Amino acid sequence: MKVLITGGAGFLGRRLARKLLQLGKLKNAKGVEEKIDSLVLFDVVPADGFSDPRVTVVTGDIADPQALSRVVDAQTVSIFHLAAVVSSQAEADFDLGMRINIDAARLLFETCRRLGHCPKVLFTSSVAVYGGDLPAVVQDETALNPQSSYGIEKAIAELLLSEYSRKGFIDGRCLRLPTISVRPGKPNKAASSFASGIIREPLNNEETVCPVTADTRLWLLSPRQAVENLVFAHDLGAEAFVQNRVLNLPGVSVSVGEMVETLGRISGQAAVSKIRWESDPVVQRIIGSWPGSWDMKRAHALGFKGDKDFDSIVHAYIADDLVARRCSEI
Amino acid sequence: MKVLITGGAGFLGRRLARKLLQLGKLKNAKGVEEKIDSLVLFDVVPADGFSDPRVTVVTGDIADPQALSRVVDAQTVSIFHLAAVVSSQAEADFDLGMRINIDAARLLFETCRRLGHCPKVLFTSSVAVYGGDLPAVVQDETALNPQSSYGIEKAIAELLLSEYSRKGFIDGRCLRLPTISVRPGKPNKAASSFASGIIREPLNNEETVCPVTADTRLWLLSPRQAVENLVFAHDLGAEAFVQNRVLNLPGVSVSVGEMVETLGRISGQAAVSKIRWESDPVVQRIIGSWPGSWDMKRAHALGFKGDKDFDSIVHAYIADDLVARRCSEI
Repeated sequence: MKVLITGGAGFLGRRLARKLLQLGKLKNAKGVEEKIDSLVLFDVVPADGFSDPRVTVVTGDIADPQALSRVVDAQTVSIFHLAAVVSSQAEADFDLGMRINIDAARLLFETCRRLGHCPKVLFTSSVAVYGGDLPAVVQDETALNPQSSYGIEKAIAELLLSEYSRKGFIDGRCLRLPTISVRPGKPNKAASSFASGIIREPLNNEETVCPVTADTRLWLLSPRQAVENLVFAHDLGAEAFVQNRVLNLPGVSVSVGEMVETLGRISGQAAVSKIRWESDPVVQRIIGSWPGSWDMKRAHALGFKGDKDFDSIVHAYIADDLVARRCSEI
Repeated sequence: MKVLITGGAGFLGRRLARKLLQLGKLKNAKGVEEKIDSLVLFDVVPADGFSDPRVTVVTGDIADPQALSRVVDAQTVSIFHLAAVVSSQAEADFDLGMRINIDAARLLFETCRRLGHCPKVLFTSSVAVYGGDLPAVVQDETALNPQSSYGIEKAIAELLLSEYSRKGFIDGRCLRLPTISVRPGKPNKAASSFASGIIREPLNNEETVCPVTADTRLWLLSPRQAVENLVFAHDLGAEAFVQNRVLNLPGVSVSVGEMVETLGRISGQAAVSKIRWESDPVVQRIIGSWPGSWDMKRAHALGFKGDKDFDSIVHAYIADDLVARRCSEI
């Protein structure tokens, strides 16, 4: 089977790619395991570090119909659509956010529709679709009320995915991700970049800035569990998504203060002292509009799994990324 | 001041136009009443019946940037965006619905953005944005869960209007309309067309078909109150829409059986006998997914008014449309 990952050069795309190559197979539309013959990693920059003969790396603009038609064809059975402009960047560059987060998603769904074979499309949405006056724990029935360009764009893409699925054009499955932490690599233009930075940088003996207050509550998921859940969602039978194409993934609710306490407990006060607290009202406003927790009943009933607690999240980063980074430096 | 009505040839557009011409003024962005010098009625077919010198009738395709740039300019202070592909038509012609209900709305907002003077944009959405398992009375906090192309498209246009408003590109105000009844004129391709037809046709001594069961519950508003509320929403201060750009208008909750009882009470059993009950599963599915009632607290607090009951709705039709129709036939 042929599988496409958009945003394939991103940290989640590459991690998912490694997972798929390691598994070597996925369930097809009939629920039967099938070998992955071809894995296309599509992004605006090349996905590096893959020597596996099953991998094809393609670069291009995902909002360009011609570029997209080069990577989606009648053999493309499954698509993981991870390409996105992140939150602070979408807020700063309105047109770019609309183009990638809405138009490219619609173009992808439309490309699938034209091909007519109803591929599985796994899509990642975000906590950012919620906002405004939220209950302590967001429910499946809680109205979306995004307060950022990124949130609006993800909410619209969710609706498009649901509609293209209802029409039978795609088999769309959307996972609303908690904020991903601890993300490896460098800081990015996500408003939530600090949610990884305040752990990652101190663990690597680097200084970092925390732009929000210690009582700011976050809803977190490790990259490891995000990838596990993407594969799990892909392999579920279509009946799991008939009533609702969008699923809130499990997360861990933790305040920024508690995150820093965990860091201190695991790595000591020297690590904690690497954090400079410097409030950024734009980031605080965006992050403060996101829910600190949502109900996990549906996700758990379907078999999705979150992290045990924030300690587990930090330990997952140390095992999955920090060790690899240290080794690569030797 | 220059005012634009898109969908200006539709029954609601024409009725709103007559109301605006009669009022002669609207409040501008500063809350000061200003004379309406120019009223542009834009639609795919000409809005007929207007000899007032303030009126300009323009025909064109609202999803065409050039056509739109002919009717929206730097002098356009207020826009009532009523143009839409109705529910059954949007369900039958997916591309047309997407083009008019999403793309044209976005193009309109984008045109306003490029002009840079932040006009008021009044937009009408629908009960159809709700669906699935709904509470007995839908609340402002109830999640949108549209089950039709029309509903998805209106939900997406709402999100776009909110975002363009948050960004300061437009002063958008969206009214979610109950099903409009009793609509004058001929049946149309709205799934809810029967909600007018089962009253209008019998009152005009014509046969009609009711495609849904008698226990189907509808949420109704008369054309008279719809127009009153559009003007009222336009003239409210911007602070009314800061927290939420979308407002659920008041309605009357009534079953189709109760509607027919009202018809009998007002016009006798001969009128009732004009209704043939012939179920249509497509219409029943679409209409059955819409809420039969929603909470009116916010609308009432802001001063919006619905109809007293379904009897008042029928009497409004008789006074506003039936008499005029009879007179035109003499």
